[in-house]
Amino acid sequence: MRAAVLHAPGDVRVEDRPDPTIEKPTDAVIRVTAACVCGSDLWPYRGIEEVDGPAPMGHEYVGVVEEVGSDVRTLEPGQFVVGSFFASDNTCEICRAGYQSRCVNAVPVGALGTQAELARIPLADGTLVATPEVPADDLVPGLLAASDVLGTGWFAAVAAEAGPGRTVAVVGDGAVGLLGVLAARQLGAERIVVFSRHESRQQLAREFGATDVVAERGDEGVARIKDLTDGLGAHSVIEAVGTQESMMQAIRATRPGGHVGYVGVTHDVAIPGEELFFSGVHLHGGPAPVRRFLPELIDLICKREIDPGRVFDLDLPLDQAAEGYRAMDERRAIKTLLRP
Amino acid sequence: MRAAVLHAPGDVRVEDRPDPTIEKPTDAVIRVTAACVCGSDLWPYRGIEEVDGPAPMGHEYVGVVEEVGSDVRTLEPGQFVVGSFFASDNTCEICRAGYQSRCVNAVPVGALGTQAELARIPLADGTLVATPEVPADDLVPGLLAASDVLGTGWFAAVAAEAGPGRTVAVVGDGAVGLLGVLAARQLGAERIVVFSRHESRQQLAREFGATDVVAERGDEGVARIKDLTDGLGAHSVIEAVGTQESMMQAIRATRPGGHVGYVGVTHDVAIPGEELFFSGVHLHGGPAPVRRFLPELIDLICKREIDPGRVFDLDLPLDQAAEGYRAMDERRAIKTLLRP
Repeated sequence: MRAAVLHAPGDVRVEDRPDPTIEKPTDAVIRVTAACVCGSDLWPYRGIEEVDGPAPMGHEYVGVVEEVGSDVRTLEPGQFVVGSFFASDNTCEICRAGYQSRCVNAVPVGALGTQAELARIPLADGTLVATPEVPADDLVPGLLAASDVLGTGWFAAVAAEAGPGRTVAVVGDGAVGLLGVLAARQLGAERIVVFSRHESRQQLAREFGATDVVAERGDEGVARIKDLTDGLGAHSVIEAVGTQESMMQAIRATRPGGHVGYVGVTHDVAIPGEELFFSGVHLHGGPAPVRRFLPELIDLICKREIDPGRVFDLDLPLDQAAEGYRAMDERRAIKTLLRP
Repeated sequence: MRAAVLHAPGDVRVEDRPDPTIEKPTDAVIRVTAACVCGSDLWPYRGIEEVDGPAPMGHEYVGVVEEVGSDVRTLEPGQFVVGSFFASDNTCEICRAGYQSRCVNAVPVGALGTQAELARIPLADGTLVATPEVPADDLVPGLLAASDVLGTGWFAAVAAEAGPGRTVAVVGDGAVGLLGVLAARQLGAERIVVFSRHESRQQLAREFGATDVVAERGDEGVARIKDLTDGLGAHSVIEAVGTQESMMQAIRATRPGGHVGYVGVTHDVAIPGEELFFSGVHLHGGPAPVRRFLPELIDLICKREIDPGRVFDLDLPLDQAAEGYRAMDERRAIKTLLRP
């Protein structure tokens, strides 16, 4: 099969790899309908995370079940499925508490790669959620978004306790931040402020439900949020970047007793204890347990109540994966969809 | 009046100071029945926090209303009252959300001092809660505990979401940690594990409701918690110390999706972002909004359902405040009560 492989920073190639097979009786193999490039794929692409030999890439995926292992009970070949970036058994105590991304048997799908024609998905019963029927083509991008960026933005909004009567601020105007806006709107937030300096992203944020756009960053951005909230700060802040500046901006923009939901993978971040202490905020986040939200998100998408697929502004055949990475790295694209 | 004053690290003197008076129409002046020495008083006493000239000390107090300002509506002279370490209006949006310690008009009572015969309490209507009647003498220590250490331990247990079916771990066997145990028990926790190496504190922890005692600290202590919880970690962890080691011990002892309630004042603590991210815990804490809990705590104490006053193992006349500080500094006493 054809698959995207990262050989070194900046060097993504689509090449022939062995077809994946059922290795464990709980595995499924799916034929990938669509995959995409994640902001977190850019860390090794940029050399910030070490690249360990030629590495298969991708952890977002929708597709059609090709084959299932002998222990798989809930899926059969031909079904259209959506999964997430951690395979999870969905039965352990951690999964049942809604933290499938930290399942005691979790397997990172990114190590297997989904930017490929076929993908092996471990723990298929716990990981994959079938759509009611094979979806119309125009629903595929939205369902693919549910696999990670929508599920992650949704988790951030839930972690930030976005809801009725609440002012929500969103730090980060990438796909996750934009879908955090959409999630906050769906959860009933009263006012949604997005930090953004990019006109096309501001526009999409407004279409997803943002009521205000703030161009300032850092402490100036915080001051603008205070201006908008009687000096108190937002009730809920979504952090979808993962830098020291963005994390502190999120904490400082939140009122005492308010909630920060953070999903930007934190690299080289250290949160000063004393400032956090006196902030009085709630802090929750981490790798989103997307599986918790998939049934609800698939339902909203299939009923066309939300259209998260709009974050894909570049749609390429898998063979042009290298250009898809480049466009995101150079911020020419918000998010690249790849079709095997 | 007589009042405790810190002149320099290690140098607490009880000396004559001017009687406080009503300065603002929302003030009350109370005659202090009992005050005490807080773990946080030891920071300047030890010279870790700078001492800025001779400083009046103390922020925990119960007493009898002596005089009220012209705008005070709910209190009158002769009432026995309990207050907390931040004066709060209890009407602003932050107070109404339950975060009175971060009231937009908050005044730190510690700057005024309560280790004294009399104390001026700002924002009296919002800050002071009257007991149903003047309490029996033996209830005074418990009500004094409500003023800070019980209210703080209670907040930590609430922030950690201690409750039925949950395993709660408590980092710190000082007065706040011990009362965190009591709070977790009252909130219905199933299993309460306290980290402690001091026999008398272990004993009191067990009497307050601890089911298990762990002597190991740091990563060894974390391993013991994992052993007790099928490898998952506690649902809820109370952090009542405030050091780098104790904060990391708390985070690492918590299962993914679990809750850390932290109330140890964090000095020189930096939380590594990447470890926090992958921990998947909820983090909440800060200066406890004791006022939120005072009516309930006073009720439990006056009905003799809880006896938090047992944390006071040294009971001295105010004039011996210096010895009270020394005993806590040397860990000869858990907590010193001072009687003017």
